[in-house]
Amino acid sequence: MYWELAGVPAVAVRRGTRVESVHAIAACVADPQGRVVMKIGTIETPVFLRSSAKPFIAAAAVRGGVAEAFGFGPRELAVMAASHNGEPGHVDLVASMLERIGATVDDLACGAHPPQYGPAADALAQRGEAPTALHNNCSGKHAGILALAKLLGAPLAGYLAPDHPAQRAVLALCERVSDDVFDGDRLAVDGCGIPVYATTLRRAAASFARLATLTGIDDDDAMALARVAAAMASEPWYVAGTGRFDTELLRVTHGRVIGKAGAEGVHCDALLDAGIGLAVKVIDGARRAAAPATIALLDALHALEAPARAALETFARPAISNAAGATVGEVAVLDGWIPPDVVLPD
Amino acid sequence: MYWELAGVPAVAVRRGTRVESVHAIAACVADPQGRVVMKIGTIETPVFLRSSAKPFIAAAAVRGGVAEAFGFGPRELAVMAASHNGEPGHVDLVASMLERIGATVDDLACGAHPPQYGPAADALAQRGEAPTALHNNCSGKHAGILALAKLLGAPLAGYLAPDHPAQRAVLALCERVSDDVFDGDRLAVDGCGIPVYATTLRRAAASFARLATLTGIDDDDAMALARVAAAMASEPWYVAGTGRFDTELLRVTHGRVIGKAGAEGVHCDALLDAGIGLAVKVIDGARRAAAPATIALLDALHALEAPARAALETFARPAISNAAGATVGEVAVLDGWIPPDVVLPD
Repeated sequence: MYWELAGVPAVAVRRGTRVESVHAIAACVADPQGRVVMKIGTIETPVFLRSSAKPFIAAAAVRGGVAEAFGFGPRELAVMAASHNGEPGHVDLVASMLERIGATVDDLACGAHPPQYGPAADALAQRGEAPTALHNNCSGKHAGILALAKLLGAPLAGYLAPDHPAQRAVLALCERVSDDVFDGDRLAVDGCGIPVYATTLRRAAASFARLATLTGIDDDDAMALARVAAAMASEPWYVAGTGRFDTELLRVTHGRVIGKAGAEGVHCDALLDAGIGLAVKVIDGARRAAAPATIALLDALHALEAPARAALETFARPAISNAAGATVGEVAVLDGWIPPDVVLPD
Repeated sequence: MYWELAGVPAVAVRRGTRVESVHAIAACVADPQGRVVMKIGTIETPVFLRSSAKPFIAAAAVRGGVAEAFGFGPRELAVMAASHNGEPGHVDLVASMLERIGATVDDLACGAHPPQYGPAADALAQRGEAPTALHNNCSGKHAGILALAKLLGAPLAGYLAPDHPAQRAVLALCERVSDDVFDGDRLAVDGCGIPVYATTLRRAAASFARLATLTGIDDDDAMALARVAAAMASEPWYVAGTGRFDTELLRVTHGRVIGKAGAEGVHCDALLDAGIGLAVKVIDGARRAAAPATIALLDALHALEAPARAALETFARPAISNAAGATVGEVAVLDGWIPPDVVLPD
């Protein structure tokens, strides 16, 4: 029934009652030392973390002193770690950060795309305005990197280059948190132009376990990660926005699960109560399968209390609607999707 | 390197030089009698053909007499078989068809979505106009079904129901061409509201072999399929539109390969010179992998002459660009992606 993928943990797309498409999943749960708590599929293949790395990128800017220098509070730190919707509140906040840095929208090299939030995109189009780099979901991250460049006395121009002082500081923190080295084909260019790194699902899970526990890293990194985690927990709307999974996950868990989506089907989560990290990759890169897989794994880890779990059901089992607005299918993990050889933690 | 899918024929997405995501493929090549010429993966699992079924849906309307009754020529027949871009030429043609039928845009039950062609969508937004059902990529198909309903003396209202006389005529032709029966979970609802059927990749390939050869079916079906095939070959822009793979494939092969994409990673092709059909399903439903897989299979079948193949290279190996416009990766079949147990035809 599931073509070649029988036996592979997967998220199914159903049309009517029949499986139409199947998304294979790999995932790892690890502790801060990188010990595997649970695994599904191949966890030693380097995966580009994409926007799931943003909490660490934001932490590098915080470690560099941007919060004190420019008066960045929890909202600013949250939007630095965000893949935001481009809603007016996100855009205005990033614009104010640039102003405080002494930069302008022209300094942002992330490129423009329409707001991810449909009503915000529609409103922009109806006003006849083109989207700017401020609407790019990564604009807060870029503002944080520009702030770091300022503090390092480095030029703003060229801040996307891997050897720019700000990017060197970012990648160094990411390497420390991952216990990994990013060179050769482990570095590429992200959708917004910055260097993106590939690390294994095991090391990604351990990185998020460190975000959860603030252990296994030096005190300055721990302090920076603590501030970013607290900011994401207290300002979840700035991490994503209206109707988004990451925002709702932070809200309903009161910040006890800090999740961050990345492009191409990545999702990483810090589980503060258990002191572990989770890293998920949809093998084919489909965004639609990432939240259903993540929630099913959080279920397996008993990480969600009943009310929180109930509030996330629309993300766990999203309906598929057609152009006329009728529900014609759904996305959901397959029954018994976790194979019997997966060892669940106590 | 390719996670669980090692050994499975696949299309890779690369970022930099590293594989970021992988799309598994199933495919079948068959003759008009449904004999397997070549297969990859599981070919006996029913797959929803989605818009790849449109040539047969259009043929049912032609068999019902809509061309003669309403003066539909090659352009109208091509747009009835189309997943069109919603460019002004497509929209105007469908509007004129409705007028000739004595129907209006309000009779279209397909729902509205913005034109698939970006510049057309932008132009509409800049004029402050909302998309209508005419812009829906399926509006030509719906106009054809409405025309058929008129000729059958059936009400236009309710034409989406599987037991409406027009849909019964459509599904009957699809069953004859497929040598299959569509009931139970083999029927569901398509993105545009009409009944959609699941058949095996083998039967889908055989259906397209019949479209290529006009054999294995009764004379009236053969005549109707011949007119649809000729219309698609002579009016390729109306089958999809500017910059689209199906339009270019028809153009560069001078209609000797009639390909039709469907949602969720389906692509089916009639190979007129070889008298065979090809059916491809991207297991995870990704649209981006369908053309690279299809072209690689057409290569394996020696179905494309060198100039035609060269003209299709941007569809065979599409670049991935980021928001700033830089090329950061590509989509392409893996080297040696066809496993050694696949038997290629002479």
